[in-house]
Amino acid sequence: MGWMIDETGLGKTAANYVPLTPLSHLRRAADIFANRPAIAYGDSILTYATYTARVSKLASALVQLGVAPGDVVATILPNIPAQAESSFAIPACGAVLNTVNTRLDADTIGYIFGHGGAKVALVDSQFIPLAEAAIALMNVAPPILIEVPDIVAGIPATGRHHLYEDLVATGDASFDWIMPQDEWESLALNYTSGTTGRPKGVVYHHRGAYLATVGNQIAWRMTLHPVMLQIVPLFHCNGWTHTWMMPLLGGTAVCCRDITAAAIYAAIDDHRVTHFGGAPIVLNMIVNANDADRRTFDHTVEVFTAGAPPAAATLAAVAKLGFNITQVYGLTETYGPATECIWNAAWDDLPEDERAAIKARQGVLMPMMDDIVVLDDTMQPVPRDGTTQGEIGMRGNAVMKGYYKNAAETEKAFAGGYFHTEDLAVQHSDGYIQITDRAKDIIISGGENISSVEVEGALMHHPAVSLCAVVAAPDGKWGEVPCAFVELKTGRDVTEAELIAFARTRIAGFKAPKRVVFCELPKTSTGKIQKFELRKLAATP
Amino acid sequence: MGWMIDETGLGKTAANYVPLTPLSHLRRAADIFANRPAIAYGDSILTYATYTARVSKLASALVQLGVAPGDVVATILPNIPAQAESSFAIPACGAVLNTVNTRLDADTIGYIFGHGGAKVALVDSQFIPLAEAAIALMNVAPPILIEVPDIVAGIPATGRHHLYEDLVATGDASFDWIMPQDEWESLALNYTSGTTGRPKGVVYHHRGAYLATVGNQIAWRMTLHPVMLQIVPLFHCNGWTHTWMMPLLGGTAVCCRDITAAAIYAAIDDHRVTHFGGAPIVLNMIVNANDADRRTFDHTVEVFTAGAPPAAATLAAVAKLGFNITQVYGLTETYGPATECIWNAAWDDLPEDERAAIKARQGVLMPMMDDIVVLDDTMQPVPRDGTTQGEIGMRGNAVMKGYYKNAAETEKAFAGGYFHTEDLAVQHSDGYIQITDRAKDIIISGGENISSVEVEGALMHHPAVSLCAVVAAPDGKWGEVPCAFVELKTGRDVTEAELIAFARTRIAGFKAPKRVVFCELPKTSTGKIQKFELRKLAATP
Repeated sequence: MGWMIDETGLGKTAANYVPLTPLSHLRRAADIFANRPAIAYGDSILTYATYTARVSKLASALVQLGVAPGDVVATILPNIPAQAESSFAIPACGAVLNTVNTRLDADTIGYIFGHGGAKVALVDSQFIPLAEAAIALMNVAPPILIEVPDIVAGIPATGRHHLYEDLVATGDASFDWIMPQDEWESLALNYTSGTTGRPKGVVYHHRGAYLATVGNQIAWRMTLHPVMLQIVPLFHCNGWTHTWMMPLLGGTAVCCRDITAAAIYAAIDDHRVTHFGGAPIVLNMIVNANDADRRTFDHTVEVFTAGAPPAAATLAAVAKLGFNITQVYGLTETYGPATECIWNAAWDDLPEDERAAIKARQGVLMPMMDDIVVLDDTMQPVPRDGTTQGEIGMRGNAVMKGYYKNAAETEKAFAGGYFHTEDLAVQHSDGYIQITDRAKDIIISGGENISSVEVEGALMHHPAVSLCAVVAAPDGKWGEVPCAFVELKTGRDVTEAELIAFARTRIAGFKAPKRVVFCELPKTSTGKIQKFELRKLAATP
Repeated sequence: MGWMIDETGLGKTAANYVPLTPLSHLRRAADIFANRPAIAYGDSILTYATYTARVSKLASALVQLGVAPGDVVATILPNIPAQAESSFAIPACGAVLNTVNTRLDADTIGYIFGHGGAKVALVDSQFIPLAEAAIALMNVAPPILIEVPDIVAGIPATGRHHLYEDLVATGDASFDWIMPQDEWESLALNYTSGTTGRPKGVVYHHRGAYLATVGNQIAWRMTLHPVMLQIVPLFHCNGWTHTWMMPLLGGTAVCCRDITAAAIYAAIDDHRVTHFGGAPIVLNMIVNANDADRRTFDHTVEVFTAGAPPAAATLAAVAKLGFNITQVYGLTETYGPATECIWNAAWDDLPEDERAAIKARQGVLMPMMDDIVVLDDTMQPVPRDGTTQGEIGMRGNAVMKGYYKNAAETEKAFAGGYFHTEDLAVQHSDGYIQITDRAKDIIISGGENISSVEVEGALMHHPAVSLCAVVAAPDGKWGEVPCAFVELKTGRDVTEAELIAFARTRIAGFKAPKRVVFCELPKTSTGKIQKFELRKLAATP
């Protein structure tokens, strides 16, 4: 409590106190990086001056449309320039940005529209039928739809709704942004993917987003003018806050509507991309690309991956192609990544397998977070022995305000002063955290806990396996047993019996899958495997 | 005002709100960078684990000595490890860090001790006589002196006071730091050098220092593990907040007690220094070094200079030696640098003179600041025409809380919602700011304003001139006329008449100095020329 004996005249004033908000990054960039490229999509480039002018016009047009401070404005958009513009324009009119996952079903989107109370929704032409279907299912006031056709991708307007460019055209480029007066004001509303029940609405504040941009910039080792390929969907934790961060560094965001190996290689070559984030599935895509889709480049691309630890073989293969992979970990509730596996040069000379094992760790706290602990059942930290398992708890300024209209779940999530991630992990002696499982993904077989991540890791070593997921299948004798779902590499083959035998050479027999199903795995739009779908399949004999 | 319709349960909790403080950087580094070098001095290296343990011990020892939260603890120390340790340990016991300039006289130091109310003062053995003299002049309770001998520099203890290492030895390495509960709590008290009258005590808060560390890291284009040579005294805006910033990046601070060309070159070679800051006089030192003191190195050292625009010739010479110079600008009131001359690659191909002219600009706003404007007399921004002069006003989170026990001066400094710098500048069309003069350094001759900076710039082009300063001399006819004080390069010569004639070839005749005095210029400990001393000399015929 560092209050001095006499604090007279030392209070907050307009000169020395400004609420933290990512809006300030763009306002600054519009001036000092005016002529630099801010957004690239196809052949078009928006400079910071143009980008900011469009943001101001959109914000003022939304105000004219009746959007008031505190209102929710939704988007159903892929990673196209309109999504980036919305990320600033919606907060710039004091409203709350609600980016909706484009892969959701109409019923869930209708629920989100109703629960969040969206007044307006900006929707890509491809998803207009989805939005219309969602609205048809609603029994409360629906949002006004504004349609965003995508000329670059050749997706025309349906002709049934007001158009985005017409709306922007009615706006005022000199519109005075409505800046937050309190940095705790709400900035964004992000519904979790919700593996069971209705999704929860995670509320972000301006302060947390500002500090997340700063922490991410440090974690990603970015200096001035990075070129970021937007693979992480902006509806996923607002693209890990990177859209808000780019103006801080005068960087360029390269929009990517459809994630393909060809698009990634082309963007790296054409725009000299320096950084991107993505699920391990994106790494597989890069490694397994057709020769025709590949391009060569002479710089190292920094890639940050999350969602699941990348397989050792994948890591080795991408490194040879010019990508440096860093594992990060976080949740929607933590504005995306909150830990990173900071590399230590002392590990450079370890054997490939050991290096991969370290790279698969989720690592240590990013700068904007205050504390991460692996907690036992009594909320005490487990020993840093690399074996004792507990739940990851986090505390810091990049933790959500809470769940919208759900004080009970918020209170539960924050019990004891930590955000409870429901992810199980061990902590190594150097403090690095390694996830062993999602609490709900653990398989309890004959009273023994089996980590689905461990079984998956064993299967991924098989040369024919491209991707796999292990879930609990109900079993009369053991309660639960591991059931594996496997995608094979093109042109490779293996039988169920061979794979089970292979697993038993690497892990304890009781942990080996009792059943193997070869199929394409169901995934979310962000590349996460939908284990709840697999659990349904595993329950069917 | 982005408050949603229903904000129930969305308030601040221990999980999602942590007051911003630079203390958190070291706490995190102690864990994740435990074995990395934090502080280097002579042959000794402190790892982050050791450094943090010593900080904790010092903090707990200060508490045992009676230091309570809100108390002031002073230091009179050069850039040695004890100064860095104090920068964290004093705030870690909730106290306010008051770094005192080692070049001040006893009377002023006595005033600072009394005005700040320092309870304890940590004093380098070299400055013990000064501190004792200061205390002898005080008529209020003096601080307890703790003496810090410097074994590396061969400066032994006087034997008259408690010793620093003995104090640290009594401390507890597991001491629980007293973290701020409110980020507006006071962190540091820095007295301005005070060219007239008593110095004013600038109060910093934890929030501002945290945000300054982040902004500086971005401005300085630092990524993980920088190696910073501490040339800027830690008693000067707390070393531009870099001591607090280093742990954020797991960097190494190389202490530098005496600033010489030999010490700088040796540190770059021995520690592979990547960054340092310093006044232009440091650049001159590097350029004019003896051959015996020089070392070669194969990387580029990023150097940030402030206090006065470096001369074109100096810039060209240092670039060839492997240093990249960036001009920054700020004041004690803004936690050190608040603007930087961000380089634009489009300028690379300009002639050397034009590049130097741009490099001499103070530039644009750093990320942690909100707004910078050049204001006319009616508090309106001047046009961005590169010629209209006004006063620089700044607003942002890295502006001081105010002046300690001086609400009247604080109110004056913050009039109209901007911090008034009293520096005069023009703004170029690209927004870059260029200082034309300190308000009090302007020379008014026959009703015409003469910028002392402009006259100095003209004289610096003469090949014999090493350093110069121009001030107003009283004049019966013109009111004031420019009087130049000049240091010549070793082995070079020029007469007063020649130099005046040379100036007239570059600037208007009425701006040329009427008198030139050859002498060593009086400088502050930070290399700033003390114009108030020169004004006294100029007033003597």
